[in-house]
Amino acid sequence: MTAPSISRYWSATVRQLSPYVPGEQPKLAKLNKLNTNEHPFPPSPRVLAAIQAELGAQAESLRLYPDPTSLALRTALAKEYGLQVQQVFVGNGSDEVLAHAFQALLKHEDADGVARPLLFPDISYSFYPTYCGLYGITHRQLPLDEQLRIRVDDYIGQADAGAIIFPNPNAPTGCGLALAEIERLVQARPDCVVVVDEAYVDFGAESAVPLITRYPNLLVVHTLSKSRSLAGLRVGYAMGHADLIEALVRVKDSFNSYPLDRLAQVGACAAIEDRTYFQQACQAVITTRERLTTDLHRLGFEVLPSQANFVFARHPQRSAAALQQGLRERGVIVRHFSKPARIAEYLRITVGNDAQCQDLVDSLRALLG
Amino acid sequence: MTAPSISRYWSATVRQLSPYVPGEQPKLAKLNKLNTNEHPFPPSPRVLAAIQAELGAQAESLRLYPDPTSLALRTALAKEYGLQVQQVFVGNGSDEVLAHAFQALLKHEDADGVARPLLFPDISYSFYPTYCGLYGITHRQLPLDEQLRIRVDDYIGQADAGAIIFPNPNAPTGCGLALAEIERLVQARPDCVVVVDEAYVDFGAESAVPLITRYPNLLVVHTLSKSRSLAGLRVGYAMGHADLIEALVRVKDSFNSYPLDRLAQVGACAAIEDRTYFQQACQAVITTRERLTTDLHRLGFEVLPSQANFVFARHPQRSAAALQQGLRERGVIVRHFSKPARIAEYLRITVGNDAQCQDLVDSLRALLG
Repeated sequence: MTAPSISRYWSATVRQLSPYVPGEQPKLAKLNKLNTNEHPFPPSPRVLAAIQAELGAQAESLRLYPDPTSLALRTALAKEYGLQVQQVFVGNGSDEVLAHAFQALLKHEDADGVARPLLFPDISYSFYPTYCGLYGITHRQLPLDEQLRIRVDDYIGQADAGAIIFPNPNAPTGCGLALAEIERLVQARPDCVVVVDEAYVDFGAESAVPLITRYPNLLVVHTLSKSRSLAGLRVGYAMGHADLIEALVRVKDSFNSYPLDRLAQVGACAAIEDRTYFQQACQAVITTRERLTTDLHRLGFEVLPSQANFVFARHPQRSAAALQQGLRERGVIVRHFSKPARIAEYLRITVGNDAQCQDLVDSLRALLG
Repeated sequence: MTAPSISRYWSATVRQLSPYVPGEQPKLAKLNKLNTNEHPFPPSPRVLAAIQAELGAQAESLRLYPDPTSLALRTALAKEYGLQVQQVFVGNGSDEVLAHAFQALLKHEDADGVARPLLFPDISYSFYPTYCGLYGITHRQLPLDEQLRIRVDDYIGQADAGAIIFPNPNAPTGCGLALAEIERLVQARPDCVVVVDEAYVDFGAESAVPLITRYPNLLVVHTLSKSRSLAGLRVGYAMGHADLIEALVRVKDSFNSYPLDRLAQVGACAAIEDRTYFQQACQAVITTRERLTTDLHRLGFEVLPSQANFVFARHPQRSAAALQQGLRERGVIVRHFSKPARIAEYLRITVGNDAQCQDLVDSLRALLG
């Protein structure tokens, strides 16, 4: 990045921002795109049917505002997860849901006005520190352990903490945390909101949703971008105690009354209601992930045990940056994080379909010579 | 509204929010809905065709993230308005665009850390004070004049102001400000960002877009929800100097990388490119508005001169609240703002199609007996 130009017209907030940099969305269709953890299969056929029904013959309904409360979608989600509709919030992708959660629930001070820091792992979703910059949230990043895993006791032990957030499974490692460990944390820190960002949970990790009815400090965030094959539709949701959801609603209604368009609302609803398709599509990714992991092991890679739709792997003798570049020249796009240093030799590889994964493995074999 | 419950888990920001209350979106299809200024005609047929093309046979592309920069849409907008693509920002409805503008461009302090207030009219879009609450922006509301019009000299004269925002035409009055007046303001206050919120400009007011190349402190905000018949698709945009747009991009990329889904991007692009349909549809609304104004005059209403797709009217002998309720009982929904007191006897009535307006007039005639 070049040094930012600073305009006299910018607010102080903008001057100090460090915007998030998403994975590349290449315009070339022929690339084997394994860099942003999209699902290899199309969404449920019911999604297309629902959007077609909403469009009708003239797209007439698009002239009208959507339901600002997304009630039908929230009702479908509540039914799917066994919750009340007041325990469900929806937004324009889980990034928007997370942004509202940072502003509404993760910024706290003690009685003397001293910031109580937000805790999250040092290796995690790199949008978290960006949100902290946007909302002026003091934060503390806790190191993963030697196996790049979250240690719950580290979080329990930070007495001054105001809130906690982490992905489960974590990104970009793919490692999941057992439900009993999450419950131990939520129970030990009733003074803190604990946000579990379950963007990838449907690929084999344990969801914390069953804990919601017992812990008023737990918020679970999901997205339809990964396991529901709807990255292009922009829908995410949060589940938790009605008081936590109310905080998100208050921020949303102070920001944008209508965050979900009509097509996104009906498409998301159809995706949630097609549980059979969802489960089969996730299982197919899991099966391919296990085969890919075996193939990478055979090529000499170390692969972290993944419960997500990506694997995080390094080769003991090869530079990750060089491998990424070599793959790119062969038309395969994977993600590489140059920071922090502990993960600079890893590649994050999305689990594509069988053909995409075979192409990746063949390209790696050629590169490794 | 009931008194808000306050949770220990809420941030200080949430505790003091006063969320915006949008106009009702009734679930009953048979109502004559003249309360949220939607366009009476469907969007351009090209919108439907573009969305259908994007969906294809399987909605396959929905599994992939959209272009985070919405480049094709921004290019179409730049071409339409004779601007560079770096002078155009798009967001999830103009409410999101405005929210980012409040955070990025409308919050300022002087060298001693004293807030420089944001100025806007006392009677205006009621979301503005809500945004100020969300971002902690000190603001000052300047009274409209006796004819409920904005006086530019009032804004020029506030020496400590940090920024200025107003709709043109203003809402809910519908009254437009002459381009020469806007230029006088933008020129007289080079120390202030001036945001002109042109949500309704296409129905007969003068756009400030031609001033953009000469004034680096001018930001113009538009929506596709009104004149493009796409309230259901959630797309808005801002135009201004590249430095102002860069500030919005930095906030957007710190909030949500992908605010516009794939269907919204292609649909909006098609709507912008169909200039002929757009102009005809706006002209039809203007023609109906003039007839409606005449009819309301005949019923004894005072009607402010409107350059928007709504009229703001009062009856000297009848309570606006009672008229609104009477209309509702006849299945006609209009908007009534009980505050501030100066407008408590006005109704804001969306210009529907000819049949909807005739139904409104017939219902009013019956009510007035």
